[in-house]
Amino acid sequence: MNSTKIGTPVIVLNVKSYAESMGRRGFELAKVCEDVATKQGVNIAICPQQVELAKIASAVNIPCFAQHVDALEPGSHTGFVTLESVREAGATGTLVNHSEHRLRIADIDFIVRRASALNLLTIVCTNNIAVSRAVAELKPYSIAVEPPELIGSGRAVSKVDPEIVSKTVEEVKAVYSDCVVLCGAGITNGEDVRAAINLGADGVLLASGVVKAKDQRAALLDLVTGL
Amino acid sequence: MNSTKIGTPVIVLNVKSYAESMGRRGFELAKVCEDVATKQGVNIAICPQQVELAKIASAVNIPCFAQHVDALEPGSHTGFVTLESVREAGATGTLVNHSEHRLRIADIDFIVRRASALNLLTIVCTNNIAVSRAVAELKPYSIAVEPPELIGSGRAVSKVDPEIVSKTVEEVKAVYSDCVVLCGAGITNGEDVRAAINLGADGVLLASGVVKAKDQRAALLDLVTGL
Amino acid sequence: MNSTKIGTPVIVLNVKSYAESMGRRGFELAKVCEDVATKQGVNIAICPQQVELAKIASAVNIPCFAQHVDALEPGSHTGFVTLESVREAGATGTLVNHSEHRLRIADIDFIVRRASALNLLTIVCTNNIAVSRAVAELKPYSIAVEPPELIGSGRAVSKVDPEIVSKTVEEVKAVYSDCVVLCGAGITNGEDVRAAINLGADGVLLASGVVKAKDQRAALLDLVTGL
Amino acid sequence: MNSTKIGTPVIVLNVKSYAESMGRRGFELAKVCEDVATKQGVNIAICPQQVELAKIASAVNIPCFAQHVDALEPGSHTGFVTLESVREAGATGTLVNHSEHRLRIADIDFIVRRASALNLLTIVCTNNIAVSRAVAELKPYSIAVEPPELIGSGRAVSKVDPEIVSKTVEEVKAVYSDCVVLCGAGITNGEDVRAAINLGADGVLLASGVVKAKDQRAALLDLVTGL
Repeated sequence: MNSTKIGTPVIVLNVKSYAESMGRRGFELAKVCEDVATKQGVNIAICPQQVELAKIASAVNIPCFAQHVDALEPGSHTGFVTLESVREAGATGTLVNHSEHRLRIADIDFIVRRASALNLLTIVCTNNIAVSRAVAELKPYSIAVEPPELIGSGRAVSKVDPEIVSKTVEEVKAVYSDCVVLCGAGITNGEDVRAAINLGADGVLLASGVVKAKDQRAALLDLVTGL
Repeated sequence: MNSTKIGTPVIVLNVKSYAESMGRRGFELAKVCEDVATKQGVNIAICPQQVELAKIASAVNIPCFAQHVDALEPGSHTGFVTLESVREAGATGTLVNHSEHRLRIADIDFIVRRASALNLLTIVCTNNIAVSRAVAELKPYSIAVEPPELIGSGRAVSKVDPEIVSKTVEEVKAVYSDCVVLCGAGITNGEDVRAAINLGADGVLLASGVVKAKDQRAALLDLVTGL
Repeated sequence: MNSTKIGTPVIVLNVKSYAESMGRRGFELAKVCEDVATKQGVNIAICPQQVELAKIASAVNIPCFAQHVDALEPGSHTGFVTLESVREAGATGTLVNHSEHRLRIADIDFIVRRASALNLLTIVCTNNIAVSRAVAELKPYSIAVEPPELIGSGRAVSKVDPEIVSKTVEEVKAVYSDCVVLCGAGITNGEDVRAAINLGADGVLLASGVVKAKDQRAALLDLVTGL
Repeated sequence: MNSTKIGTPVIVLNVKSYAESMGRRGFELAKVCEDVATKQGVNIAICPQQVELAKIASAVNIPCFAQHVDALEPGSHTGFVTLESVREAGATGTLVNHSEHRLRIADIDFIVRRASALNLLTIVCTNNIAVSRAVAELKPYSIAVEPPELIGSGRAVSKVDPEIVSKTVEEVKAVYSDCVVLCGAGITNGEDVRAAINLGADGVLLASGVVKAKDQRAALLDLVTGL
């Protein structure tokens, strides 16, 4: 579904390009997210694998985000993903500048502006407080701070490095008060989520904590207890 | 549909990231391709926009190719496209190294090998005869030679530069006789296709000639008269 | 020469990779800059071609800047340029994120921090006011705003688009008051320089206006009349 | 010095961007190479750090190679390195496609052709036999095969994986008989060099074995015993 904002507090699930989130398994995972969101009355957004975006966005009733877009207008750009194609696919927005897919600053500026004009939401990932402040000057919908050394570590940023969360919230909102601030890296359970919310975050961004879980639904149900 | 080969002679339609091939229009264009292929009894393959791949591949009964894949195994690679995800999406294979999305040689080698192990077909684009010979050493399913200066020009490679077509066919098959050799750049009508086939090509790769046509079905019907 | 700051107002000459600034001609151009700077008592800095940096930096007594560095520490990085190697070469600092060589935001942050620790000066190029504000949050030594559409155009930013200059000065200094603010794009004569200084800029960044001039010394002598 | 070929058997020393090969230490290392080459009557070529290329190439009388060039003609390309600038710097040629700096196949083709027209020598690095065959079709001056997993390992390719050396020599020469074939990865002493020569290689490419040695001259003297 397209939308001009997402409800908070929110759990944003980036399924990356894991084997556990491809094809049928990716589709079912999206359905689990929708089911948990509906039944528990909580906000969950999902970022499907790129080639599944249109298929999943048209099948579930929760916000879907692309994992990445290129800083290009529609045209002769073979194999690149435009914001326009993401919107047509039925997505609500896109992740931007994930630590595994960093972008040039002029391209982040292009994407944030154009997304805004297209009513698409941008969640721009950052690696520290200084970069978060810098990105805030570009006025994206949301900033998700993720210390690279904690990503996929199982050690939650909200517990291991609480200051980066509270400081990012404070400094980003000082620059751009409307910004939705998320944190990520190592988030795996409801306690980690609650810690993030208590530090002032509007939600969390996570991946392996759910995708790689033996029981993805159980992992998600545990996470939402922290909202 | 997945398949271990595609019928030849073939028209491969790369829809790029044009506005005319996004979302609903991309879906309808794929349906037109399927319809023409079936009714005329000819071989047409389509390369949908990346975010539409799973949706379209599950809805049409002609070979679908990704426009690009990254040289990565499934894992924590946000926003990248793996061969495995392309296969799960129901695609037959992928374009590789399009002139708008050039790849490093070690990555072409990785993709061709891994695709082969996964029963996915690779169509590797090249820009001249020397590069075509070089790529042939890697034994991809198919090579599509496209002189960059003619891409999108409306001046058909098979008529403007026939020697590059015949020479590529000859030299590629000297290195790897099983290789399916396509040509592309500027192809817009049945006469261009016929010229390509007469020069020894197994088919053509094209984009704007159909996608940007006022009447896409009519353009396609004209093209297939050359097969 | 290494230095912890450069005198202002300043003309920074980026010689790019033009044929007119390679090898012996690049060396002589650097000597002309040094000569004009000394005789006229003005501040000129030069950015030689990368492979000439050590040779020129050890031969002239004006500040030399690398045109680009990579966001890497010394190590097994074949063909990349580290800040440490630039310092050892005798340079004063480096351009960062030139419009022809854009960088990822996390890499700009890395380079600015590390340069500061090494007493190297960074001149970070930006393309508009929003990006200039964003970069100012990273506290580089200098920001050089250059509207891409005017680069190499011969139409001076300080005359064609004065507001981008005055606004960038104002907004960058609001974020980081110590920042040296330059402007560039289309600067070719003393009048263009004077206009820039009058708009509040601490100097200009230019390339073709001198490098491509029939008489490089005359072009430079004209430019410095604006300081 | 510029030259249209290098003597074989040869040791090519890539100093990478190590701290031990920057600035004054890089200059002295080049002088040691020259001294050993002259006194022992053997062929040694050196690839200095990029910013030192002109300085070192004008100071030593052995072949100097750039570590990398970009696939660009002279022009407005800030911070990029052209073949022309490398030639003006006094270099004999350039490494191409090192495993730490992989290039797109169309760019390797561009660089090999243009270097040839400029009388510059190209040493194209490859990672396996198939890629070596592919590159041989482009007719570079030299191919250096280096299995990535052995680079910097201290385990010499010529002893750990002799077949990749002998097979690469055989297959490359079958495609392009004039090609100078080197091998690299893990080479540290004269015995490793001798093993390479006995397998048919025309020389070796190495880096850490000398650069990181406690006594660089002693390491080099040991290596040349294998020629």
